[in-house]
Amino acid sequence: PQIGVCYFPEHWPDDRLEPDVEMMVDAGIEVVRMAEFSWGRLEPERGEFDFEWLDRAVGTLGEAGIDVVLCTPTATPPKWLVDDHPGILQAEADGTVREFGSRRHYCFNSAVYREETERIVSRMAERYADSPHVVGWQTDNEYGCHETVQCYCDDCAAAFREWCSEQYEDIADLNETWGTTFWSQQYGSFEAIDPPRHSAAEHHPSRLLDYARFASDSVVDYNRLQTDLLREANDDWFVTHNFMGNFPTPDAFAVGEDLDFASWDSYPTGFAQDRALGEVTADRLRAGDPDQVGLNHDIYRGPAGFWVMEQQPGDVNWPPYSPQPGEGAMRLWAHHAVAHGAEAVCYFRWRRCREGQEQYHAGLLRHDGTPDRGYHDASQSARELGAVAEFTDSSASDVADTGSLAGVDAPVAVLFDYEDLWALDTQPHSPEFDYWTLVGQFYGALRARGVQADVVSPESDLTDYAAVVAPTLHLADETLADHLAEFVDSGGHLLLGPRSGVKTPGNQLHENLAPGPLAPLVGGHVDQHETPPESLPTTVSYRGESYDYDTWAEWLVAEDADATGTHESGVGDGNPALLDHAVGDGSVAYCGVQPGEDLADALVTDLLDRADVAHTDRFPETVRVAERDGLTWVLNFGAESVTVEAADDAEWVVGSETVPAYGASVVSAPVASVSLADR
Amino acid sequence: PQIGVCYFPEHWPDDRLEPDVEMMVDAGIEVVRMAEFSWGRLEPERGEFDFEWLDRAVGTLGEAGIDVVLCTPTATPPKWLVDDHPGILQAEADGTVREFGSRRHYCFNSAVYREETERIVSRMAERYADSPHVVGWQTDNEYGCHETVQCYCDDCAAAFREWCSEQYEDIADLNETWGTTFWSQQYGSFEAIDPPRHSAAEHHPSRLLDYARFASDSVVDYNRLQTDLLREANDDWFVTHNFMGNFPTPDAFAVGEDLDFASWDSYPTGFAQDRALGEVTADRLRAGDPDQVGLNHDIYRGPAGFWVMEQQPGDVNWPPYSPQPGEGAMRLWAHHAVAHGAEAVCYFRWRRCREGQEQYHAGLLRHDGTPDRGYHDASQSARELGAVAEFTDSSASDVADTGSLAGVDAPVAVLFDYEDLWALDTQPHSPEFDYWTLVGQFYGALRARGVQADVVSPESDLTDYAAVVAPTLHLADETLADHLAEFVDSGGHLLLGPRSGVKTPGNQLHENLAPGPLAPLVGGHVDQHETPPESLPTTVSYRGESYDYDTWAEWLVAEDADATGTHESGVGDGNPALLDHAVGDGSVAYCGVQPGEDLADALVTDLLDRADVAHTDRFPETVRVAERDGLTWVLNFGAESVTVEAADDAEWVVGSETVPAYGASVVSAPVASVSLADR
Amino acid sequence: PQIGVCYFPEHWPDDRLEPDVEMMVDAGIEVVRMAEFSWGRLEPERGEFDFEWLDRAVGTLGEAGIDVVLCTPTATPPKWLVDDHPGILQAEADGTVREFGSRRHYCFNSAVYREETERIVSRMAERYADSPHVVGWQTDNEYGCHETVQCYCDDCAAAFREWCSEQYEDIADLNETWGTTFWSQQYGSFEAIDPPRHSAAEHHPSRLLDYARFASDSVVDYNRLQTDLLREANDDWFVTHNFMGNFPTPDAFAVGEDLDFASWDSYPTGFAQDRALGEVTADRLRAGDPDQVGLNHDIYRGPAGFWVMEQQPGDVNWPPYSPQPGEGAMRLWAHHAVAHGAEAVCYFRWRRCREGQEQYHAGLLRHDGTPDRGYHDASQSARELGAVAEFTDSSASDVADTGSLAGVDAPVAVLFDYEDLWALDTQPHSPEFDYWTLVGQFYGALRARGVQADVVSPESDLTDYAAVVAPTLHLADETLADHLAEFVDSGGHLLLGPRSGVKTPGNQLHENLAPGPLAPLVGGHVDQHETPPESLPTTVSYRGESYDYDTWAEWLVAEDADATGTHESGVGDGNPALLDHAVGDGSVAYCGVQPGEDLADALVTDLLDRADVAHTDRFPETVRVAERDGLTWVLNFGAESVTVEAADDAEWVVGSETVPAYGASVVSAPVASVSLADR
Ligand SMILES: [Mg+2]
Ligand SMILES: [Mg+2]
Ligand SMILES: [Mg+2]
Ligand SMILES: [Zn+2]
Ligand SMILES: [Zn+2]
Ligand SMILES: [Zn+2]
Repeated sequence: PQIGVCYFPEHWPDDRLEPDVEMMVDAGIEVVRMAEFSWGRLEPERGEFDFEWLDRAVGTLGEAGIDVVLCTPTATPPKWLVDDHPGILQAEADGTVREFGSRRHYCFNSAVYREETERIVSRMAERYADSPHVVGWQTDNEYGCHETVQCYCDDCAAAFREWCSEQYEDIADLNETWGTTFWSQQYGSFEAIDPPRHSAAEHHPSRLLDYARFASDSVVDYNRLQTDLLREANDDWFVTHNFMGNFPTPDAFAVGEDLDFASWDSYPTGFAQDRALGEVTADRLRAGDPDQVGLNHDIYRGPAGFWVMEQQPGDVNWPPYSPQPGEGAMRLWAHHAVAHGAEAVCYFRWRRCREGQEQYHAGLLRHDGTPDRGYHDASQSARELGAVAEFTDSSASDVADTGSLAGVDAPVAVLFDYEDLWALDTQPHSPEFDYWTLVGQFYGALRARGVQADVVSPESDLTDYAAVVAPTLHLADETLADHLAEFVDSGGHLLLGPRSGVKTPGNQLHENLAPGPLAPLVGGHVDQHETPPESLPTTVSYRGESYDYDTWAEWLVAEDADATGTHESGVGDGNPALLDHAVGDGSVAYCGVQPGEDLADALVTDLLDRADVAHTDRFPETVRVAERDGLTWVLNFGAESVTVEAADDAEWVVGSETVPAYGASVVSAPVASVSLADR
Repeated sequence: PQIGVCYFPEHWPDDRLEPDVEMMVDAGIEVVRMAEFSWGRLEPERGEFDFEWLDRAVGTLGEAGIDVVLCTPTATPPKWLVDDHPGILQAEADGTVREFGSRRHYCFNSAVYREETERIVSRMAERYADSPHVVGWQTDNEYGCHETVQCYCDDCAAAFREWCSEQYEDIADLNETWGTTFWSQQYGSFEAIDPPRHSAAEHHPSRLLDYARFASDSVVDYNRLQTDLLREANDDWFVTHNFMGNFPTPDAFAVGEDLDFASWDSYPTGFAQDRALGEVTADRLRAGDPDQVGLNHDIYRGPAGFWVMEQQPGDVNWPPYSPQPGEGAMRLWAHHAVAHGAEAVCYFRWRRCREGQEQYHAGLLRHDGTPDRGYHDASQSARELGAVAEFTDSSASDVADTGSLAGVDAPVAVLFDYEDLWALDTQPHSPEFDYWTLVGQFYGALRARGVQADVVSPESDLTDYAAVVAPTLHLADETLADHLAEFVDSGGHLLLGPRSGVKTPGNQLHENLAPGPLAPLVGGHVDQHETPPESLPTTVSYRGESYDYDTWAEWLVAEDADATGTHESGVGDGNPALLDHAVGDGSVAYCGVQPGEDLADALVTDLLDRADVAHTDRFPETVRVAERDGLTWVLNFGAESVTVEAADDAEWVVGSETVPAYGASVVSAPVASVSLADR
Repeated sequence: PQIGVCYFPEHWPDDRLEPDVEMMVDAGIEVVRMAEFSWGRLEPERGEFDFEWLDRAVGTLGEAGIDVVLCTPTATPPKWLVDDHPGILQAEADGTVREFGSRRHYCFNSAVYREETERIVSRMAERYADSPHVVGWQTDNEYGCHETVQCYCDDCAAAFREWCSEQYEDIADLNETWGTTFWSQQYGSFEAIDPPRHSAAEHHPSRLLDYARFASDSVVDYNRLQTDLLREANDDWFVTHNFMGNFPTPDAFAVGEDLDFASWDSYPTGFAQDRALGEVTADRLRAGDPDQVGLNHDIYRGPAGFWVMEQQPGDVNWPPYSPQPGEGAMRLWAHHAVAHGAEAVCYFRWRRCREGQEQYHAGLLRHDGTPDRGYHDASQSARELGAVAEFTDSSASDVADTGSLAGVDAPVAVLFDYEDLWALDTQPHSPEFDYWTLVGQFYGALRARGVQADVVSPESDLTDYAAVVAPTLHLADETLADHLAEFVDSGGHLLLGPRSGVKTPGNQLHENLAPGPLAPLVGGHVDQHETPPESLPTTVSYRGESYDYDTWAEWLVAEDADATGTHESGVGDGNPALLDHAVGDGSVAYCGVQPGEDLADALVTDLLDRADVAHTDRFPETVRVAERDGLTWVLNFGAESVTVEAADDAEWVVGSETVPAYGASVVSAPVASVSLADR
């Protein structure tokens, strides 16, 4: 794995290029990303191109042995383009135009903007097709940032009509799939369909779900336009995109099909505040929530690994508060990413920018060009990843070469589905219900036991997993039920969470009670559901112990399954809440509540034991261990140092068994052999 | 009183009709409401009508002995109609159009939509004019839901100008009545007047009040168009409308003048959350607030009683949280409604709908067609109302016939005025001030003492009441003062709350100090008012005891009246806060603060004693008793069972003296004989 | 100093004028302001003028010996004018028009409205040019109230382009000054520039700052149009404008250059709630925060003093809550204003208005025309100011003549800068960061020690001050650095707060680290900054003691300076937090955190001692002392009486050494001789 950085040579005087590159080399930087907002600089006026500055940067970096990743600059169409074609701008649901002045102001469905995109992408791709230094491309930048996937302009209206006409046989098919008899919402033709613009009350959930699908597909199409052009120019380049964290749109799995691998932008202390899945503790303010970050690593990790294309380098501008990260946190995050399978960790940005919207966003350098806190952490990370590579890879010839590691070999899959996320976001049925939180409860339980998990779409091949955790499978059809049955029949063990099998793919309720098509697998069904506020007591038993839950409850009826737990509070007191069902050579456990941490741990531990998956004792929430390629990373996201024990013959490749606050160690030992030392 | 249900045969396969009707008959359902959102199904394309499905439903129900109430489907104009006439859509104050996709998207002042309304209403009315099964009609559905009474479109602008020109002699009259010299707001002609659209700061209160009146009148007019057409087709039908709970617009008394009786839609646990008048207790989450629900029963109850046209059947989709109602709560609500004078209680809906915006709204049946919790509660209610009828009505020939009860005979009137509500909503003068809360404090005190109250407009005939409670009479003129003086002079006893007599009907301050024209009745006037936040102490004395109050305080000057209470806190310490004034053969008590529960109880109890109105001891907030036709209902809205005592010869018609959690009993005894048993 | 009142004869019958004037004379009112919203009354139809009512009021007042201040009525263009020229209306950033119906609905950049302004202002000015009673004018009313300085209409777009073309040499200059390479925000020409209308994400900070400057300049221009016309008609009149309190726009110093003196509108208990700089205590609800009010007095005070053009007269309508002011508070406020240098204190309004948006705003009279609480306080103030004048001014011939006092002679300047305010408002970097709060911490510390301060722009002549407090100097260039260096070199003592020297005037980061051009003065620089939320501990040492701080922290590097304090919490523990630097004959102290009250007191006390400025012991937050013209006011903003001691020969001109709750005394003694008596 490599340490990299995001670089904007266009923001600095020409004579700063050489010193910058020298400092990068000194720090062990092996890859540099550039140009993602540079359109106005590359093409100051229509047709007047200026590539020299970029040529020079690519050349200087390349000659210093640094790989270059270039970006298409389409996230920020320049003012002259907007003035030529104001119709490319997005519109809000109430019709207000999203004007020029920030970024992501273009509509994915603008035919004019697609032409402009072709023009600039082709031009750039041709320019660097033969460069020995450009190793790959990032398309655009953070699709959907600032909630820009869904646009309500007239181009989107036309495209949505077209999209609907492709999804459905005829308008009657759409009417039936959505269920438009309700409130007289029938459409007489595809031409009658509009985006769900401002209305007096909430929109039809099926229309909303299809609009989310359409909008995501618009991004997929738009991105494919770019990947095709790039590969046309040079088929050896890799093509990736930098997705965002805990981000609902677009469907990253679908966009990912056109990429060589996915990348994402990781800002641990930012996410810990404004997309928090729990309490904003002091530790999270200083280092982030390891499971929130790890979940995203695992979502974006695929067979070819993943990149952190932007790694938080210090304090950043956009969360509510900007405390300084803990001492060493920027190094901790790099190790954490690598432990989860990252092939590169690129800090964003090289140097704090003096101008524009991100002046309060740190870089590895201060804005005066001197090293900042992140520079030291990045350098140390590069050195240590070199040592790791040396340890595992005899081809690693020097400390600056961070070499290669085998990918992560996860015994468990967590099923994650963007359509479920969209459907549940539209009808959360409680102010507290949140798809990420529900997934996070199960995922965090796995990670607290040191288990690596692939986070994959439910339709994925599950053959090689011993166990599968599906925090929910909200939209479900017979095909999905068959797919899971096959997994379980052949010995797989499935843990399934609440709100599963409730909806058809069209976002109607299934004809039968939840879990609908999954009921035979579960061996029971849902009698009632409710969303109690925090003021009401919410307790269930599970295998003889009492546990808290929150936000969502189902009262179950056990048919073929055994009730392993029962409601112990409220109106549903005494009704089953958890089921266990032996199926074929495997098993299905169903949990009818959103579990608290302890219940999630109990459920996951039982699953792992049943599936014979090795795991550790339960670690506290600030300590995480993760195995990759025979090495185990011990990652401390807390303000207190911790000491662990590993097998006697374990060799400490980085650090030692005492891991300081916000520190990381790497030991050559299987993860299951690692545990907290007695204090 | 009858048990009924709201039914949507159009949502289900044709062959489901017979089984549904059979299950209704089994449950004792005697009346079914249908078709309120069915326009798209009745007229799939302009001029292409399909009534067969509805004919069949009406026929099958009728043949099974079930009465049918039909609805005009005007709340949801179909897409083809909107596409033909986009001008019918409403507009927000900032000009944003309320687009198609939910409901209530039409403007009451659209001439085009009035034509379309005539077309569909006439067609339906003619179709069923001779049906032996259709007993009555509901016009439209929940006028004003989703804040749609006030619209700001150009049709409304024109109609408002016209309305103003009808209200005022000339533009000078309007300018003087509003008082437009302030901030140079004079109008040169009626043509210069606009709706109060988005402006830099708050609008003129007189303009806002007249816009509220105009908007309410627009609904009255629009509704009358429908009632006229329906009565033209068949003069024997009753015509009603289903109003909403705790709902500010339109003026239900005014709309009601064109109805045979009013109906309303009662969702106790929903209201207890998002229109809460106090703390959202666990009991209210499970069964609602009896006084919040009871107040609405009494608002809508008229000489011909009232209907609950939609009764919450279980968990519902629209409050913040959706906990399951307590065991039996759906039965409790039916009894509660009947005790307050309901002639029918129709559960909404028959079966949970698989499609559209209300998938998370329960029905009496689950969405798979099997009985849900509400079905059992509804059936039991039907049986018990049959028993009640049998007890009181010798003509009741079988248990399924719920027969008739005499109406509620209330000794006390509570004065409620929509114009006061609108005026105070516009100028609450404190974040906590709320008309419903103020009314609720006085109303709840009456109900805690077992007293039935008519909630009527201040202009109503008060002759037959022993006592009148006016929580406030904010807008007041000499006519109103004379009306009340007549009541008091002839022996009536009046309890009047704060903020009374402050404003002219034009929403200016009266020339003299509050209570303006009511000052001679009160025997004093207001020296100062203030709205202390909760952080300041707020205590008054009343007849020697100390009491808390909140939100609103007046320092009074006693002229002819006696000061019965005095401020004991703050800058006004020592000033009179409550007055008593003997007038003619009656009396007027004035309360210059928003009373807490204990002060409200003291004031109301003194009023009842003075007026010689029988009442009970004070019940806790979850227990209510109510007398109708010689029977007393004991209604338990709490999680603990309660035991009451009644006269020795009392006969328990439903249940017994021990009323379980969320239960109801009916005893043949006067309400004043009922009390909590010693524990 | 005079007591005055704001009067609206147009709201009352003609025959009320004489009684009103008589009551004013009785109360000692010496000046009356009129006509600021009277355009619709003065010109009911275009070109049809009616000045008679105003002539009569001016005449009657003048003959009673009362001076008249007239206002141009441009804050409320009448409906006929708006209907003639709807283009004069302002627009929101999303394009929504701010319609007629409240006030301030005109755009400062409308050429049409400037013509209309000329028309009405000239007409009024000519009418009263020869009046012996009109002593001065107020232009318009509260520029910017309801956030109306920034408008986004097309006239503003054109004017902003023009403004930019005047500020910058060419478009390249603008691009470089703003830094538009970031996110491809380059402009090809001035024509390409727009107002910062609604966009997907935040706008460029340099564009926003220039838009704030442009909008403020638009007000300056517009105001100058009025002042020129008024002075053209009569050069002896004074011209002022009534600014608002704690108000960010426009730049009052810039507008003030065209005024003879500034005025402002003081509403202590209103500001204490909705612009609170700290806790909303019971005392502040009753009397306001003396330092919040005092800071505004000192901002608006210039060489010719200042006026309180509107003084809160009792309860008011616009804060969240409207508790009654404490007994005597209206008198306290007048004394407080005079102690800070006011030449007139005009209560707003004479009589509570029966019509329009301010019915809940008290006057000196109740709406029935009888004296209200404020009338008595105003009368007493007038009498006492007469006594003060008698004491200091032998020319004072009777108690109703409040005579003249010398101006305030402040030893300390507090630097206040509107551009800093705008820049920091745009990038607060923490939900809690607020320019007013930061300034208030330092200002309050001075006032707690009895020190008078001039609040002036950083560019002001500082020669005569012994010490200068700059809570922050965020935007700074070499010119400013030189200006301060000169002050310090020649023996001045400077206390400088955090976030100083961060930005260029173009709102980019300086090339070097903060405090940028101020670094040589400070003798060190900023290594890191952070914005910890309240949940994190925030403590620093200062000269051996521990102190709390909040919201903003810098870790400093001492170069030539001494570190006087160090971080004692968080990641920055051990880094310097405060510096001291001897420069020339003076000194610079730098504080790298937002200090709590105790740290602010320690810093300010050290500064005063170093600069040899006499000061008192520290007073509690509700007691303030202020010296003017040899007299010291003791002002009690608390609910408990306080007793002070002064020099033995001190003479009590008003009140005595025991100052009751919400009371004021005046003693002939230097402020530094006054202290709290032992209890
Ligand atoms: Mg994955
Ligand atoms: Mg009624
Ligand atoms: Mg000043
Ligand atoms: Zn679009
Ligand atoms: Zn309308
Ligand atoms: Zn404008």
